[in-house]
Amino acid sequence: MNKEIPYKIYLEEHEMPKEWYNVRADMKNKPAPILNPATLKPVTVEELSPVFCEELARQELDDTTALFEIPKDIRDFYKMYRPSPLVRAYCLEKKLDTPAHIYYKFEGNNTSGSHKLNSAIAQAYYAKQQGLKGVTTETGAGQWGTALSMACSYFDLDCLVYMVKVSYEQKPFRREVMRTYGANVTPSPSMTTEIGKKINEEFPGTTGSLGCAISEAVEAATSREGYRYVLGSVLSQVLLHQSIIGLETKAALDKYDIKADMIIGCAGGGSNLGGLISPFAGEMLRGEADYEIVAVEPASCPSLTRGRYAYDFCDTGKVCPLAKMYTLGSGFMPSANHAGGLRYHGMSSVVSQLYDDGIISARSVGQTEVFEAAQQFAKVEGILPAPESSHAIRVAIDEALKCKETGEAKNIVFGLTGTGYFDMVAYQKFNDGDMSDYIPTDEELERSLSTLPKVE
Amino acid sequence: MNKEIPYKIYLEEHEMPKEWYNVRADMKNKPAPILNPATLKPVTVEELSPVFCEELARQELDDTTALFEIPKDIRDFYKMYRPSPLVRAYCLEKKLDTPAHIYYKFEGNNTSGSHKLNSAIAQAYYAKQQGLKGVTTETGAGQWGTALSMACSYFDLDCLVYMVKVSYEQKPFRREVMRTYGANVTPSPSMTTEIGKKINEEFPGTTGSLGCAISEAVEAATSREGYRYVLGSVLSQVLLHQSIIGLETKAALDKYDIKADMIIGCAGGGSNLGGLISPFAGEMLRGEADYEIVAVEPASCPSLTRGRYAYDFCDTGKVCPLAKMYTLGSGFMPSANHAGGLRYHGMSSVVSQLYDDGIISARSVGQTEVFEAAQQFAKVEGILPAPESSHAIRVAIDEALKCKETGEAKNIVFGLTGTGYFDMVAYQKFNDGDMSDYIPTDEELERSLSTLPKVE
Repeated sequence: MNKEIPYKIYLEEHEMPKEWYNVRADMKNKPAPILNPATLKPVTVEELSPVFCEELARQELDDTTALFEIPKDIRDFYKMYRPSPLVRAYCLEKKLDTPAHIYYKFEGNNTSGSHKLNSAIAQAYYAKQQGLKGVTTETGAGQWGTALSMACSYFDLDCLVYMVKVSYEQKPFRREVMRTYGANVTPSPSMTTEIGKKINEEFPGTTGSLGCAISEAVEAATSREGYRYVLGSVLSQVLLHQSIIGLETKAALDKYDIKADMIIGCAGGGSNLGGLISPFAGEMLRGEADYEIVAVEPASCPSLTRGRYAYDFCDTGKVCPLAKMYTLGSGFMPSANHAGGLRYHGMSSVVSQLYDDGIISARSVGQTEVFEAAQQFAKVEGILPAPESSHAIRVAIDEALKCKETGEAKNIVFGLTGTGYFDMVAYQKFNDGDMSDYIPTDEELERSLSTLPKVE
Repeated sequence: MNKEIPYKIYLEEHEMPKEWYNVRADMKNKPAPILNPATLKPVTVEELSPVFCEELARQELDDTTALFEIPKDIRDFYKMYRPSPLVRAYCLEKKLDTPAHIYYKFEGNNTSGSHKLNSAIAQAYYAKQQGLKGVTTETGAGQWGTALSMACSYFDLDCLVYMVKVSYEQKPFRREVMRTYGANVTPSPSMTTEIGKKINEEFPGTTGSLGCAISEAVEAATSREGYRYVLGSVLSQVLLHQSIIGLETKAALDKYDIKADMIIGCAGGGSNLGGLISPFAGEMLRGEADYEIVAVEPASCPSLTRGRYAYDFCDTGKVCPLAKMYTLGSGFMPSANHAGGLRYHGMSSVVSQLYDDGIISARSVGQTEVFEAAQQFAKVEGILPAPESSHAIRVAIDEALKCKETGEAKNIVFGLTGTGYFDMVAYQKFNDGDMSDYIPTDEELERSLSTLPKVE
């Protein structure tokens, strides 16, 4: 192989995948079915349809179809920012003086600033196809809300976003981006839903949580004619849409005959990680190849490394289906960790099952070391990474430094899910040496896990 | 020509220009020489060298060499974010229902968020080559300071940024990006320079200005061993470095046999506009082609459309050389216009001369109509544009709508210089219907122009 590897491997537009890949089709141990919270029985498409768009409900429950055609309208939208580059981190390698080859798939090159747009446009498309008026959702850090606002604006759909109150107040710029794209943004808990009123009554002055915002968004969708609820992570449909990340990554590597040794992704709800690793995990499941796949989570919210694999609620209000997943308990409140998108108490049931089956491994990292990696990366690679993405950078750097010890020229691939432009408050804390590294105690986790629902 | 034009025309890395183009070499009427403020005689390389790096001083005064090789280290850095895409705005065309073909050269795909990095890395490189310890500069909106911080971090140079005090306070996130890249950021006017102390004394409580920050940065450079001053716009060397924008644009158009009819750029100091149009203006100057080139400036700071073509000071402290340019007078204070990068009182002497010779035309646009265009663009093209860039979008949309009237299928090319992530305060004002459209009166301009220095 003599082709010189460029800094950025771009696929041509015609090389962009035309199908999403559903890794569940290749899993012998399928993820456990999601359960109707009222009956504790597996939900049907019919039961999901009042909440989700029909086609998305079908995708959610389909664990046998391997490939789903990407509709042309979605592919056209993708072309505005896809194929995204797979970047060879030449400058980082040089700085670390490592024999390892480091690659990152950069998903921050669109205004939402993250990979979330891949699924947002798909979900908005199916809502439009179904003739809906609009969709509702929640957002914490704001990446998902921004992505959905953009997608809805493109398809001329109404977009109601319940934004965790503390973010609404502390991240006014995120809010304004969504408003610029035409979204209606409400701080949660609000007085516009029954569950919001109830929470405001029970906990006066609360600044909200993701689980609570989910409950409000679901209520807003189901109580309104022509609206459905959409979600940016955790769900299997989201992982399906996000598989485009992994498919492009694999195509770009193949183009230059590069065989990845390690694939590293940050893990919150699992949308990026699941999408990035899907085709690689698929090869492992089919016995065609072997990779070391690492999920990286914050030590402050360690669902894989310290959670329990059990059925749990996905939201605080307990209106959503139950999923079997690695969870810290739906009542778990992560500490003030600034990697907003990685604060979810649970984990995608697909990722959970792959982890339980040993296809992927997991590590947790502290916040200060994450920001150190972020700064090191930014200084040589130019891109200011999102705190979430920087969890993967931390482990990629650690692994590259191990290669320096051993002399191995491993091919390390990680997902750079987004940019940190709206996370400067966290960077400021880091710059000021004022970052917290809180890790939950065993007692805290036990307490939170004791609230798991009894299923079976 | 049957090649289908993709959404994004990417050049391959090996197609990236290896030389910058100096449009002055093809100008029959050369820009007037810059003058030593002490002698009012044209400055020499020797006189400039205490302020600028030597090679940059040479580039500044060279109006005959057409091509300058881009050093390999700079090309390697460029590869992290270049070649930048030339995007066919299919979605905007469809939304406007215009027969025109609209293309934009997107320079916001790097952490500095703008084209400024193209010159920052060049200036940092030459400083490093000369064995300097560091560089000083000023920043207003913060794009240039961010770009320079990144460049200095890459070459391990000290970076002292004087940031206009009002921006330092109102744009803390910009400041933190610079700090993350290791820059030392000081609010200007400060008490760290003589000129800063003097201005603070004369105008207690002042929130600063770009002209004042320039004076402080120059003093900081010249009063320190091993430091030089660098500047992100106006200078001819900056236009030289920025010519890579135009060269890539032309190469991408040529690749698909597209002949531009109009080329539109926003104009503050002229760095983006000059870089974008250089190769096209060169063809016009050599009689090889004809284009309609339009500089777009804010109605609140209309140096081309309402200024005077005369020698003027480049800074408030009058320590910099004098340049002959379209100017509103160095004492001109633009109103609270949020398009921060377009608030400079003067204009690049190259752009000024090309304008005076009729090679380019100019228009001014109001702020509200600029943000309307920005929002319209963002909604369909996905990218949230910087307010500066949105001046060009406004005119591109206006021209595309004219084509709708006439039925012409013009090829309209504009420069999308950057993203608006750090301009959400301005977007918020727009979203709230609270944007100001102040235009200076004739009397104000007369007053400001009456302070022009007497030269000749």
